[in-house]
Parts: sequence; structure tokens; C-alpha cells
Amino acid sequence: MRIAESGCCLLTGACPGVPHEAVLGAKGAGGHVVGVSPAFSLREHVERYQSPYREYDVLIFTGLGLMGRELVNIHSSDIVIVAGGRSGTLGEFAIAYEQGKLIGVLQGSGGITEALPALEASLTKLTGSEVLYDSDPGALVSRLLTRYTSRDYTCPCYPSARPEASGRSGE
Amino acid sequence: MRIAESGCCLLTGACPGVPHEAVLGAKGAGGHVVGVSPAFSLREHVERYQSPYREYDVLIFTGLGLMGRELVNIHSSDIVIVAGGRSGTLGEFAIAYEQGKLIGVLQGSGGITEALPALEASLTKLTGSEVLYDSDPGALVSRLLTRYTSRDYTCPCYPSARPEASGRSGE
Amino acid sequence: MRIAESGCCLLTGACPGVPHEAVLGAKGAGGHVVGVSPAFSLREHVERYQSPYREYDVLIFTGLGLMGRELVNIHSSDIVIVAGGRSGTLGEFAIAYEQGKLIGVLQGSGGITEALPALEASLTKLTGSEVLYDSDPGALVSRLLTRYTSRDYTCPCYPSARPEASGRSGE
Amino acid sequence: MRIAESGCCLLTGACPGVPHEAVLGAKGAGGHVVGVSPAFSLREHVERYQSPYREYDVLIFTGLGLMGRELVNIHSSDIVIVAGGRSGTLGEFAIAYEQGKLIGVLQGSGGITEALPALEASLTKLTGSEVLYDSDPGALVSRLLTRYTSRDYTCPCYPSARPEASGRSGE
Repeated sequence: MRIAESGCCLLTGACPGVPHEAVLGAKGAGGHVVGVSPAFSLREHVERYQSPYREYDVLIFTGLGLMGRELVNIHSSDIVIVAGGRSGTLGEFAIAYEQGKLIGVLQGSGGITEALPALEASLTKLTGSEVLYDSDPGALVSRLLTRYTSRDYTCPCYPSARPEASGRSGE
Repeated sequence: MRIAESGCCLLTGACPGVPHEAVLGAKGAGGHVVGVSPAFSLREHVERYQSPYREYDVLIFTGLGLMGRELVNIHSSDIVIVAGGRSGTLGEFAIAYEQGKLIGVLQGSGGITEALPALEASLTKLTGSEVLYDSDPGALVSRLLTRYTSRDYTCPCYPSARPEASGRSGE
Repeated sequence: MRIAESGCCLLTGACPGVPHEAVLGAKGAGGHVVGVSPAFSLREHVERYQSPYREYDVLIFTGLGLMGRELVNIHSSDIVIVAGGRSGTLGEFAIAYEQGKLIGVLQGSGGITEALPALEASLTKLTGSEVLYDSDPGALVSRLLTRYTSRDYTCPCYPSARPEASGRSGE
Repeated sequence: MRIAESGCCLLTGACPGVPHEAVLGAKGAGGHVVGVSPAFSLREHVERYQSPYREYDVLIFTGLGLMGRELVNIHSSDIVIVAGGRSGTLGEFAIAYEQGKLIGVLQGSGGITEALPALEASLTKLTGSEVLYDSDPGALVSRLLTRYTSRDYTCPCYPSARPEASGRSGE
């Protein structure tokens, strides 16, 4: 997985589906994986949300439910990648944009990704967010990392004196 | 204000701007107004968020910040109306859709409202949410209330045995 | 109920038990009652938490779970009354103390109330919180209101320029 | 640091003071350290909360404020250690007890620790929580780990089929 090979930490919502496939890829490549769970305990995580847990290096139990944990998920990510997705992912995109994050959209992955260019154009609020579009997953990750590590990149999330790059990434 | 005249309670994010104009309209019409604040105290509400407070019948201090309080805001509303708006409103739309709420979009009010029809079409998840579009505010409220009070309307938010209509509305 | 007769709004966690008895008392006295629910929807409120809802003038669905909603509960109250209670109530006491609230403890009501005087003495952090103890419910409410409305009372929750008394109360 | 030497991950509120001294100790011993921040961004973490960040392997930005992040902090810990502390720590103790966690209290460390035995005795709710007291830090950690890894230990946080020990610890 490109994300892990790039030295990034992968952060997901610790849910089944596309995010978990990314987790398996990152673990296979020796990456560090953090899961931000909607549940308030491992029991709720497994029994109510029927979500995986064995592959995570760190599991955070927010107890905030499916939409609430997305706040923590996005706040804790440096780069947000959107692949497919429905209303939950739309909420994450909105939070990421509002927080001025660097966002990558995997074109051709269905779901809300086709509607995002027109939507982004209507978001006239200057939050500092930058959105990159690419239909090739590897190229998308590369472009995001190039931008993220470029000298002139900054995020409103950072202190005025920018910290050293810590290389986190979420989806 | 149509919302107050209809016997609805108006619930907003207790912020300045369009929502506060709705609050003033509802109060003028004798309505009941609830504000869901991002702040954890009245001090933070006034000094950090520079938000109004005198016109509210009830002020709830969530302490969850601008995006976090939107969860509480939407969860506590029966009907959600989108007028204009940017990334914050987009997050509320996403939450409302995910929760299966009855949503009204005021067409022609700018912001994200023009991009919502195409976006909604890409939200293939069947959450039970219904989205009505109208460019006339009064007609939009009327249509929402007609739908909300119709015998066959139900929301996944309701218990199996639907409670009596309590007529709340948010924006 | 003394709280309602005093013109206060009663705010509870919308749960069964002692808080709901206070709700019934306040409604009988013509009071205004706000419930802050752990659930994210009325369905979850009723089916998962088996909690009452018909008696509330306003129900706020936080979606934060039993402990998370306590934050919203306490943040939104001017006066916090502790009667009996176990670990959940202890959490509310801790939050209320941390936020500098005016707190009333009903002595003789069991639960954690007997241990609170010694505990309070060990809380050396000057948060501005004041804790009144009384074994008579009516006297406790009277003393709390006398203190709350006294000219020299202030709470760190208030803006520097104190707002007009809005008379809220929670438990 | 005993916690790191035991193969545990240290989880703290990423704040200055005693918790940060534990972080420095754990890092020196080669441990893995997770910080759960009250801030919604690194900027707020540094500028508003004036908190450290360089020593953490993972930083989670909850955006929930000082008391709200404690929920995430405690939910995500297997073992909770109380050393000194005031109303904030009291809130964490309450949440940990409510969630049935294994709790260690460092006797003689001041703050609320002296009042906790009497308080615990008044918490008649059977949550499954166990509280161990010891005035020696090393002995306290050893006893907690012995209990935590014993065959008959279980926590209501775990699924019915207990997962393999993942060895997390919080403070």
C-alpha cells in the first residue's frame, strides 16, 4: 500500500469495507494503523458495530457514534482521501474542508466522488483546504504527499511555527 | 415567520447570520426558539463565538465546537432546512441525510444549494431521508409540514410506534 | 415543585428515576422542562435507553451516550442539584465543579452524597464553584436561588458583563 | 518506566504536568505513547492548551475540550491510574468506574486520592470496576498487570469472547 510505504500512519474509522482493505494493505506493507471507533468499548465495537479490531496498532474508542467519531477521525488526520462513499463520507469531506485539510478524491470510485468537483466549486468559504483529484490511487497518494511535504504547504491546523512533518494520513 | 406560525419550535446553532434572522422572525411571531451552541459556557458563546443569546428560550451549551454541535443540532430536529451555506451547512446536510431526516432546500439561496440536487442523486444509501426543493420559503415550509404531518410519513428516528407529532424544526 | 415555582427551567438527563420524578413535579407546577438525552434519536431514546419523553417541552438528542451527554447537561445548567447518585452522578459533580457551577447537595439522600463533603475538601483547584449542603429539599433550592440571585454571585461561565438572570436549573 | 517496560502502551491526555512526566519516562524506556488531545487541531493544542506534542507516537485531536476528551481517554484505556488530581481527574475516575475499568490509585500522591476509598465505598452500583490502592508506583503497576492478565479477569468493556490481551494503559 502506497500510504504505508510512504512512511505515513493510516488512520481509519475502524469499520469494515474499503477502509479495512486499506488497513490490510498498510499492515502488509509494515505500516502503522490507528482506528477511531464509533463505539465506547471493544464490546460495542464488535457486537454492535460488527467491526474489525485485530489489525490495529491503536484503537481509540470515542463513544460518539458513527457520525460523531468522524470529527475525531478528520481532526486527527493530516491528509484525507475520499474513495466512493455516501452520506457518512460526505460528512467527513465537509469537516475536512471546513478544517482546511489537504484532501484527495479518487475519481471513478463511485459514490459521492463524481459530485464533489461541482460541490467544491460552490464552497466559497476560504478555509485553506486544497482538494486534489486523480483516478489513479498511486498517483493520488504521490501528489498528496508531494504537496504535503512541499515547502510552501501549510494548513490552518498547524501552529504559526509549523511543526516537523509527522506524516499522518486518514480516509 | 412561517415556522413559528405553524406551531413549530425553531432550533438553530445560535450563531449570527441567516439563522439569527430566522430566530428574530420566529420570536416576532410568538414562537419558541432553542439554540444549540458550540460553546461550553455562555462566556465562551459570547466572547469566543461572538454569538447572540438574548432571544433564545433555551440555550444548550454543547462544548463540542462548531462542527460537533451540528450533530446535536440535527439529531434534535425533525425537519432540517438548508438555505445557502458552505462547508458547515454541508456537514449538517450530510448528518441529516444519514439520519433519515426530512430536509428542505431553499433553491436560489446560493452557497451549496445549487449543487445539492446532483449530490443527492449520488447518495445511493437508502437512509429514509426525503429532500424537498423549493425556491419560495413559504411554499417550502408548507410542503415540509404537509409531508411531515401526512399519515404515511415516518422517519427512521422514530420508534416503531410513532409518537404524536411534536413539531420541531431546525436549520 | 420548588424549582418550577421559582420560575426556573428544569433540565434533566431525560432518564427514568429520581430525575423523572422531578420532571413530573415541575410539569405539575407549570414549569418548563428540558431533557438532554444520551440517544441520537427518539427511537434510540425509547428503545435502547427506555426513557420517558412525553413530559418534556424540549428534548435534545446528543447522541453522546450516557456519560457524554452529561457534559451537555451540566454545561447548559446554571445550578446543579445532586440527590443520591452513583458513578454517573459523580461524573456530573466533577464536571459541574470543574466548570465553576453553583452546586446543591441533598444530604441524607444516599449514594455519593455522604462522601461529597470530604471529597470537595480535597478539590484544591479554585474553579469558582460553590457547593451548598442541606438535608431539606425546599431549603436547599431556596438557598441556591438566594445565592444565585445575589448581587455578588458570579460564575466563570458568565461573560465579564454578567447577563440578566435566566434562571435555569439542572439535576 | 514500569508501564512501558511491561509492554503496555501509555495513553494520556497529552497535557503538561504529571501525565507528561509519565510520557517522558515511557519514551525513555522505548514505549509507545498515545495522546488524546482536547483540541481539534495541533494549532489549538499548542496555542490554546499550551500542551506538548513532540513525544507522542500518535496524537488524537478530539475537539471535545478538556472534559469531553476524557471520555475518549478513558474509553480507550484498559487500565486507569489515578495519581493526585483534582476535578478533572475525578471526572475520569467516575467515567472509568462507570465503564467497569480496572483502576489503580497511587496513595499518598495527594489531590483526590485520599478521598477515593470512602467515595468508592459509596458507589453501590455494580459496574464490574475494580479499584486497587498502593502507595508504591512500581508495586501498583505490577499488581494492576497481574490482575489484568489473570485468567479470571474480565471487563464489561470486552466482548463475551474475550480478545487477546492488547496491553493498553492510561492515566
